[in-house]
Amino acid sequence: MQRDSRISEAVIRRLPKYYRYLMDMEKNGVQRISSRELSNRMGLTASQIRQDFNCFGGFGQQGYGYHVSDLCAEIRRILGLDKQCNVIIIGAGNLGQALANYVGFEREGFSIKGMFDVNPRLIGLAIRGIQIYDIDILEEFIVDNDIKMGVICTPKDHAQKVTDRMVKSGIKSIWNFAPIDAEVPEDVALENVHLSESLYTLSYKMNDI
Amino acid sequence: MQRDSRISEAVIRRLPKYYRYLMDMEKNGVQRISSRELSNRMGLTASQIRQDFNCFGGFGQQGYGYHVSDLCAEIRRILGLDKQCNVIIIGAGNLGQALANYVGFEREGFSIKGMFDVNPRLIGLAIRGIQIYDIDILEEFIVDNDIKMGVICTPKDHAQKVTDRMVKSGIKSIWNFAPIDAEVPEDVALENVHLSESLYTLSYKMNDI
Repeated sequence: MQRDSRISEAVIRRLPKYYRYLMDMEKNGVQRISSRELSNRMGLTASQIRQDFNCFGGFGQQGYGYHVSDLCAEIRRILGLDKQCNVIIIGAGNLGQALANYVGFEREGFSIKGMFDVNPRLIGLAIRGIQIYDIDILEEFIVDNDIKMGVICTPKDHAQKVTDRMVKSGIKSIWNFAPIDAEVPEDVALENVHLSESLYTLSYKMNDI
Repeated sequence: MQRDSRISEAVIRRLPKYYRYLMDMEKNGVQRISSRELSNRMGLTASQIRQDFNCFGGFGQQGYGYHVSDLCAEIRRILGLDKQCNVIIIGAGNLGQALANYVGFEREGFSIKGMFDVNPRLIGLAIRGIQIYDIDILEEFIVDNDIKMGVICTPKDHAQKVTDRMVKSGIKSIWNFAPIDAEVPEDVALENVHLSESLYTLSYKMNDI
């Protein structure tokens, strides 16, 4: 399979959605599906789907459609979900704890190795067996535990500083929930989840309808 | 001020980001700002910013730039954050509780009136004074408390059913955290927050860099 190296952000963002729909179908015993059926379920056009899949070398067979479990496995591989990724969460408040409690991420290979906080009342506690450590040992923990991803659940004012410390210690991806546009070097992957912005967009739409 | 009724989704999605940057500036005592300065801070072009603001009638004065607090107030109004919006959260698990614990939403007019669950061990408890009710009383609670927005933090399999019940009871906006593409009528606003899809996109990027 040849992968086009200039795959657009929009295509990349659709991949997890394909994965979700296909995983559901696999679970429900669907063995194969045409791009037209898939397009009906997902609300995309069939040609869009074929185009998207062609970015990754294409997966279908003319006249047969897609083999659901093969396609699942292929997308899982493309998304890197077939590898284990060691993760830490910075900020053990409500959101950090909610993410630590969610077991779904672990099923896809994201293994949460620890949480970090500055609050002495939280340090030493454990959430679902995941220990909360003092932020002071952040750098050595990252190196010692081969941590690849950091999840930022700190207040806004600490988020960039924590990002910088993680990047310096070799972390290659940042999942940021703090309401800042975190800055990272080019070789570090970043996803911002700005919940307030989603809520305000919803508010706009509600008032606009 | 005249508002263009066909404002694109992309423009709408940038409004909360403008609001965030401008609120920060206001807090830091910045009184006015040119579109060029704003563009530098936000990583957008100055012409993009002027174009976006023109969709809402434009706010700047030639040669003066934007008056920060006026612009904040105007965007707040456009986003509907100047009104109170009564909200309920369905699903009082980790994520629901994390959202209920976050006070920032209340500051922008989103008042959480109650949470709902099916779990008898949760029903009757309160999170930061917000009561957890039995899902059985959902419909009457929505009507009695003038609820305008429902936040879905249920497992996947319950999400569409809960959406339908809320819509039938008159709710006009749904903030959905369950991993489904919830279906709503055209006169109901919807925002999906698919955390897994954000994580998988990050995973792809990390493996692609």
